[in-house]
Amino acid sequence: MTQPPVGIIMGSQSDWATMREAAALLDDLDISYEKKIVSAHRTPDRLWDYGKTAVDRGLQVIIAGAGGAAHLPGMMASKTRVPVIGVPVQTKALSGVDSLYSILQMPRGFPVATMAIGAAGAANAALMAAGILALQDPALAQRLEDWRAALSASIPDEPSDD
Amino acid sequence: MTQPPVGIIMGSQSDWATMREAAALLDDLDISYEKKIVSAHRTPDRLWDYGKTAVDRGLQVIIAGAGGAAHLPGMMASKTRVPVIGVPVQTKALSGVDSLYSILQMPRGFPVATMAIGAAGAANAALMAAGILALQDPALAQRLEDWRAALSASIPDEPSDD
Amino acid sequence: MTQPPVGIIMGSQSDWATMREAAALLDDLDISYEKKIVSAHRTPDRLWDYGKTAVDRGLQVIIAGAGGAAHLPGMMASKTRVPVIGVPVQTKALSGVDSLYSILQMPRGFPVATMAIGAAGAANAALMAAGILALQDPALAQRLEDWRAALSASIPDEPSDD
Amino acid sequence: MTQPPVGIIMGSQSDWATMREAAALLDDLDISYEKKIVSAHRTPDRLWDYGKTAVDRGLQVIIAGAGGAAHLPGMMASKTRVPVIGVPVQTKALSGVDSLYSILQMPRGFPVATMAIGAAGAANAALMAAGILALQDPALAQRLEDWRAALSASIPDEPSDD
Amino acid sequence: MTQPPVGIIMGSQSDWATMREAAALLDDLDISYEKKIVSAHRTPDRLWDYGKTAVDRGLQVIIAGAGGAAHLPGMMASKTRVPVIGVPVQTKALSGVDSLYSILQMPRGFPVATMAIGAAGAANAALMAAGILALQDPALAQRLEDWRAALSASIPDEPSDD
Amino acid sequence: MTQPPVGIIMGSQSDWATMREAAALLDDLDISYEKKIVSAHRTPDRLWDYGKTAVDRGLQVIIAGAGGAAHLPGMMASKTRVPVIGVPVQTKALSGVDSLYSILQMPRGFPVATMAIGAAGAANAALMAAGILALQDPALAQRLEDWRAALSASIPDEPSDD
Amino acid sequence: MTQPPVGIIMGSQSDWATMREAAALLDDLDISYEKKIVSAHRTPDRLWDYGKTAVDRGLQVIIAGAGGAAHLPGMMASKTRVPVIGVPVQTKALSGVDSLYSILQMPRGFPVATMAIGAAGAANAALMAAGILALQDPALAQRLEDWRAALSASIPDEPSDD
Amino acid sequence: MTQPPVGIIMGSQSDWATMREAAALLDDLDISYEKKIVSAHRTPDRLWDYGKTAVDRGLQVIIAGAGGAAHLPGMMASKTRVPVIGVPVQTKALSGVDSLYSILQMPRGFPVATMAIGAAGAANAALMAAGILALQDPALAQRLEDWRAALSASIPDEPSDD
Repeated sequence: MTQPPVGIIMGSQSDWATMREAAALLDDLDISYEKKIVSAHRTPDRLWDYGKTAVDRGLQVIIAGAGGAAHLPGMMASKTRVPVIGVPVQTKALSGVDSLYSILQMPRGFPVATMAIGAAGAANAALMAAGILALQDPALAQRLEDWRAALSASIPDEPSDD
Repeated sequence: MTQPPVGIIMGSQSDWATMREAAALLDDLDISYEKKIVSAHRTPDRLWDYGKTAVDRGLQVIIAGAGGAAHLPGMMASKTRVPVIGVPVQTKALSGVDSLYSILQMPRGFPVATMAIGAAGAANAALMAAGILALQDPALAQRLEDWRAALSASIPDEPSDD
Repeated sequence: MTQPPVGIIMGSQSDWATMREAAALLDDLDISYEKKIVSAHRTPDRLWDYGKTAVDRGLQVIIAGAGGAAHLPGMMASKTRVPVIGVPVQTKALSGVDSLYSILQMPRGFPVATMAIGAAGAANAALMAAGILALQDPALAQRLEDWRAALSASIPDEPSDD
Repeated sequence: MTQPPVGIIMGSQSDWATMREAAALLDDLDISYEKKIVSAHRTPDRLWDYGKTAVDRGLQVIIAGAGGAAHLPGMMASKTRVPVIGVPVQTKALSGVDSLYSILQMPRGFPVATMAIGAAGAANAALMAAGILALQDPALAQRLEDWRAALSASIPDEPSDD
Repeated sequence: MTQPPVGIIMGSQSDWATMREAAALLDDLDISYEKKIVSAHRTPDRLWDYGKTAVDRGLQVIIAGAGGAAHLPGMMASKTRVPVIGVPVQTKALSGVDSLYSILQMPRGFPVATMAIGAAGAANAALMAAGILALQDPALAQRLEDWRAALSASIPDEPSDD
Repeated sequence: MTQPPVGIIMGSQSDWATMREAAALLDDLDISYEKKIVSAHRTPDRLWDYGKTAVDRGLQVIIAGAGGAAHLPGMMASKTRVPVIGVPVQTKALSGVDSLYSILQMPRGFPVATMAIGAAGAANAALMAAGILALQDPALAQRLEDWRAALSASIPDEPSDD
Repeated sequence: MTQPPVGIIMGSQSDWATMREAAALLDDLDISYEKKIVSAHRTPDRLWDYGKTAVDRGLQVIIAGAGGAAHLPGMMASKTRVPVIGVPVQTKALSGVDSLYSILQMPRGFPVATMAIGAAGAANAALMAAGILALQDPALAQRLEDWRAALSASIPDEPSDD
Repeated sequence: MTQPPVGIIMGSQSDWATMREAAALLDDLDISYEKKIVSAHRTPDRLWDYGKTAVDRGLQVIIAGAGGAAHLPGMMASKTRVPVIGVPVQTKALSGVDSLYSILQMPRGFPVATMAIGAAGAANAALMAAGILALQDPALAQRLEDWRAALSASIPDEPSDD
């Protein structure tokens, strides 16, 4: 099996409810991906290995979702130069502002491309990945343009009461 | 003159104090760029044109910095499939949380790769751009790896009192 | 059909649950209006056209509701001198504070008359529109005074346990 | 002396540092105004009288700035149907978020057109007033269009290092 | 009928769900009270009259509950020297932080004794009123001491699983 | 020496910069007071003793200022039925929001009359104390009315540019 | 009966729903504990006694959970040198940010080892207690290592759709 | 040289301004320590090694300070069962709330004993370390008791105007 260009990783099974939006949108755009649970705290060695082998395996983009003290995206960014897109998962007490700050506020040197909190952010992570991959893939660029055009075309002129 | 792969745009002259960090880091990595003031509200047509011609001109990444009701990054993302990296500029009353929310909380369809608030975010925007471009440019990939290695090597073992 | 003086626009169908409060109150005050979905990101050209033709079509007030990175009200304010009233729609993770900051924190030059978050804000947008139109319309001024007097008269003297 | 169409009111002398931005912009647009200190708490009767006579005196727009528990704009809106534009003055401990919430979160019935926190909000209050008055005053409409065009024309193409 | 020493006022019928906690606790302590709806915005004249007659009628403490741009407690404090206790009612979008800031952040000259957000705050308003009245009423002082002692005595030694 | 009716207590010497505003205003109103440093954490026994003897010593009102995890006002309220007025002192990192929440959010049973953050809150604590004492002291009631009238009379009609 | 090394204390019965997570995890690690309701405000003397006897009774770690103006952990830290671990209980209006700030922001001299808001924090308080006790107890150190290893081993490689 | 029982680690040289407060207090208590810069992102391998060898080297407590996306304390807690005390360093845009959430909101399994934001938190980290070590070291327990007693004794009875 060929290495898919996108890796979706998340801190726990419970993040999948959010991150499956990313997977669904990659499916829509016909982009292959792998999906893994990589917990920064519970499986740090898995994180290490994933990051260290990312370039050699041919990963082009890593989408990382996490909640709370969401260290996964930033730690992954410290282990590989492959672009990391971070998705802050909504949390119970702090609504995902904790996840957001932990992912966003990276120090100089290790950017994480942070998306909106929650499911919209996960979907957008897939679109950002598509935009990056499209720079080298004219067919994907066309599919992405078509997806965007279809989205725009789907907007009705007036709101409906139903 | 060839089109540089990166466009740095910002909402006003005052954002340059922050965004020059992005320019400086692109210089360090020997990545060429153009820099423009594109105000979403004061020059919306400039924004429109910039977005509509981005693909054809050959732009690969757009770095957009803005403060307050920071509409520039998100509006640019709605006009082009070229990846947009957003930098929330720190503001006086709300410390850049206003800039952050306006850039980050994009609806499904139009991602902005949001960086940390302020100068560290601007520098990281350049590094994120480098990571994206490095996917197609092995020499840049090597320069980026070297830059990261040098950063790590620069960290002393112990804090100094001076 | 004559051009109604008020345009209610919103970023998506889901905003209608909030914005119908504005419509209902305009109905109460016998003010005619049009209602449109105008997405800043998904239909930017619709936004452009709406703004550019607003004065010529005879629009007097634009009520714009949006949530998240709520760029619609501010972008509309950059396209027309017709007064724009903004309604921050409540959001899931950030309760509408994201919508609020994106609408409120406009730079010098492009005001948006921001209302309270959610349904009360939508109703008040209609009343603000009425107050503006009443400056030129004594009959409407009277209807607005009557509405306000009726609201005050409806307040019971003591709270009821039922 | 004729009644000017705009009243600028503020809760205290210290708010003038912010509110003079509104006055300056009204001057630029050649709109006459009166300016008063009307403290909701220290001079409630002054507030009462100001609100009760506003329509009869011919006031068209009231710009009200206040900080902290900023009750002035909302209380004025309860006393008159003349449109009230509120400016949250920045405060020491809470940066004007207290002012903002007190002005913005008005209940159904009494809208306040809330502007950005601080000086930009004060300037925008004047522009919003101009936009409202321009609906009945073609010459002012032209001056406002010109002001907006001049603002847009003043934006340089590139940021400057100086 | 004698004037009760405590007045419970609130901005709307919907605040009664919170403010009845104050009434219930005053009942427990055998303190008589009147309860009124006094809306700062919808019935400002009622607010005025209530404040102006408070001293002469013999009111000793005013408990005022309100939500959102909660102007009632502070405006009442500007109309009378009778101590005003403010209860921030929880709100939908901002959880009562809007109510809190509007009540708490009063300028020098007009204090409002602010209680916790919601029902606990309403109950505590009654206890604060009791503490104030107890300064002149030894029998009430004893009832208050007894109530406090009973509360302390009611705390079990260990948590129960039921 | 007679026991003064008001006790001003504070958590540390550094709070005095804020709390002296309370003292100054009590001086203006000719109300005698004692002032003490009572640290909830560093001198808990002093807190205990102060609370336990408050009623017997004849204290009528306690004004307590504290910053950070500001436990002093609430712990004092748990030790005595004498009304406790709390002043949240502004802090470095969290601007006094930490002080505010620790003072305000008291559970059912132990109210603290919370004032605005910082110096205005300290001054208002003195006025709240005056309002409470005035219920039993007609001469003080008159002085308080006069102070309020003088404050209102001091407000100029127009803002001054100087 | 021997004194267990860990005391779990909480401000009220309602905190038990959160704090039982701490008890459950101590059970898993075979660490004995006592559990008590100790209300800082309702039973301050109980708090005093608990703190004063902690060292002599042989308590090694105190886990203290509280919500709102959560004074229990900090006041306990002022009464004993036994390490205090604080758990901020989630609250209705402020989601536990009030609890967090009251527990966290202790002044120099009296640390509270603050855990995450809510149930995860309670569980982690038990693990922190275990880590402290393990320094003197090799068998417990091994059980803790095993527990951590089992947690890591339980993480599946891929998210599951069920 | 013997292994000191405490390790102070920090994410960068700039954190030392805060963390030296921890060192100073350990000096006061005659507790030996090592101090290192261990950047989670720039020197992840150093973090790994530090954590993996902590138990074997005989470290008893790790004090970790970091700012922004402060991953160091939590990542260290995932690598060793040695108790980790986290100090959130104050940051420019978000005042250390970003640091706080990244350190505090750890998932079940990996506690970090979080201290107050900034220098007071660093000092308290040293005191928490002392409290933990004192459980096995009666002489240190006495020094800690003495330090606490001296702190209490240093509090003057009244605030001073100087």
